[in-house]
Amino acid sequence: MTSTLPPEIAHSVSYADVAAAANRLSGVANRTPVMTSRTVSDRTQCQVFFKCENFQRTGSFKFRGAYNALSQLTPEQKQQGVITYSSGNHAQGIALAGQVLGIPTTIVMPRDAPLVKQEATRGYGADVILYDRAESRREELCQQLSQERGLTIIPPYDHPHVVAGQGTTAKELIDEVGELDFLFVCCGGGGLLSGCAIATRTLSPNCQIIGVEPAAADDAAQSFHTKTLHTIHNPETIADGARTPSLGKLTFPLVLHYVDDIVTVSDEALLRTMAFLWERLKLVVEPTGALATTALLEKIVTPPPGSRVGIVITGGNVDLRRLSQFFV
Amino acid sequence: MTSTLPPEIAHSVSYADVAAAANRLSGVANRTPVMTSRTVSDRTQCQVFFKCENFQRTGSFKFRGAYNALSQLTPEQKQQGVITYSSGNHAQGIALAGQVLGIPTTIVMPRDAPLVKQEATRGYGADVILYDRAESRREELCQQLSQERGLTIIPPYDHPHVVAGQGTTAKELIDEVGELDFLFVCCGGGGLLSGCAIATRTLSPNCQIIGVEPAAADDAAQSFHTKTLHTIHNPETIADGARTPSLGKLTFPLVLHYVDDIVTVSDEALLRTMAFLWERLKLVVEPTGALATTALLEKIVTPPPGSRVGIVITGGNVDLRRLSQFFV
Repeated sequence: MTSTLPPEIAHSVSYADVAAAANRLSGVANRTPVMTSRTVSDRTQCQVFFKCENFQRTGSFKFRGAYNALSQLTPEQKQQGVITYSSGNHAQGIALAGQVLGIPTTIVMPRDAPLVKQEATRGYGADVILYDRAESRREELCQQLSQERGLTIIPPYDHPHVVAGQGTTAKELIDEVGELDFLFVCCGGGGLLSGCAIATRTLSPNCQIIGVEPAAADDAAQSFHTKTLHTIHNPETIADGARTPSLGKLTFPLVLHYVDDIVTVSDEALLRTMAFLWERLKLVVEPTGALATTALLEKIVTPPPGSRVGIVITGGNVDLRRLSQFFV
Repeated sequence: MTSTLPPEIAHSVSYADVAAAANRLSGVANRTPVMTSRTVSDRTQCQVFFKCENFQRTGSFKFRGAYNALSQLTPEQKQQGVITYSSGNHAQGIALAGQVLGIPTTIVMPRDAPLVKQEATRGYGADVILYDRAESRREELCQQLSQERGLTIIPPYDHPHVVAGQGTTAKELIDEVGELDFLFVCCGGGGLLSGCAIATRTLSPNCQIIGVEPAAADDAAQSFHTKTLHTIHNPETIADGARTPSLGKLTFPLVLHYVDDIVTVSDEALLRTMAFLWERLKLVVEPTGALATTALLEKIVTPPPGSRVGIVITGGNVDLRRLSQFFV
């Protein structure tokens, strides 16, 4: 860390934290494959490397941050257990990390969360507590249960150990393929984006780091460009992993400091890209997982010919019985 | 080749032909990834290696045999061009191989072949000739066009260069992961199965080589067990790549000589396995591509605990607009 860093950055998450997370995850998380595609190279005139976190354990990158956070709890905290609120990939990440480490996990989920996600989370041994969206707010319920039962809260993104864990995604990518000119990462609460940006600034200092958001949920893009935190509640987008209302207290300054730009893509473009990834690259990718690729293929950002471009494909958890909403 | 080989085997396709094909394909075909899955390892108590030819160029292994055959034509044959009949993956394999080698290609397809396949084949520069299934037989039409236009016919499986090319799939797998105890390969016309069996007998001599067919199209299983060629026309199975009526003049003796067993799986089991491969392994796999995995996961064959098992996932070409027929 240099003296030019603002204090709120200098004391939060550093590259050393990402490197330490990578050591903890070694042999536990999958070292996911990096894929390339002649079709994509031809279309973009760039060398494009897809880091495929849809092949990560639990089907998304979320296991990285969850495991990194849980493995650093005190023995007392581990014995008492952890709690989080999530209807999505963070829930499964925490549940599996708890199972691997022998830590009891409790997940607060809305009663209308897809049954397949409830079952997957219970399948990893978590205690799933359902609530009615109309009656209670999940953060408050989570807080209350945490106090009553002595459980440590592990939030989905606004936590330094979660951010450092997610950053190992970019570290692995650059360790494998070498320095990049551009890195595209989707942005919900900014945990993955800021973690990857921290890793990339050290490992590939000249790389342009681009966050990608759904147009209907562009709170992070607005926050980034105005340097003031914006919030959008319950945005209408098919990218459910990016429906988070805003960047966090921790991730907002990290994103402002380390990221070069945040751009947005329409749901229509996102679905086109998702179909392309399924049909041509043969990858099962969830809508949020296709955000970064969309910014490249739809030329929202156009790297110069010959650029070396990294793309994080974040997850592949879709309900096959609901595919008709994606492919018409 | 040893003197114990029957003459029809000794003079057809050998391991040396597979090795030579691998040299021709080097840098042209994708060296497809080998994937593993903790879930599959836990369920089977085996070390399972998936050779993912859905990531091959054109989306299936067929490019290997097509390129190996086309690259061995005489300069005159190359100039005149080639012709084949296929509505499926062989068409695309031939079309792309022709494009790469600068050889004109003509593909005879039924008029009711999915538009997406016609377009993909034309996209690789092939001349697509449509015919009415009711009015003509494709082999005769192909023969007639071949004579009129001086085109060399490259059949989908019953050709030594096609067999040798497909065999590079197993060679790559064993070169990468080491010797196997079991190898599961699907069987349509037997080109892939016999090619892989030839490679495996040399590289992993004690490996049990298992062919897998749809139950409704079990001509190869019947032929194998009775040692008499059986034919089934237009079988009703969702595995369209295995609807070939019978093994070929070349592939039947090869399969009899090199393969250990041929088993069958129901379409119901096949669809269960396909959903598993999409949902858990995040792989877009076509029905035929899931045949080999089905025999393992549905315990049609049960390798002893600790076995090293290879599975060929043959292709991933599905029309996303037709997915509702697979996942209900």
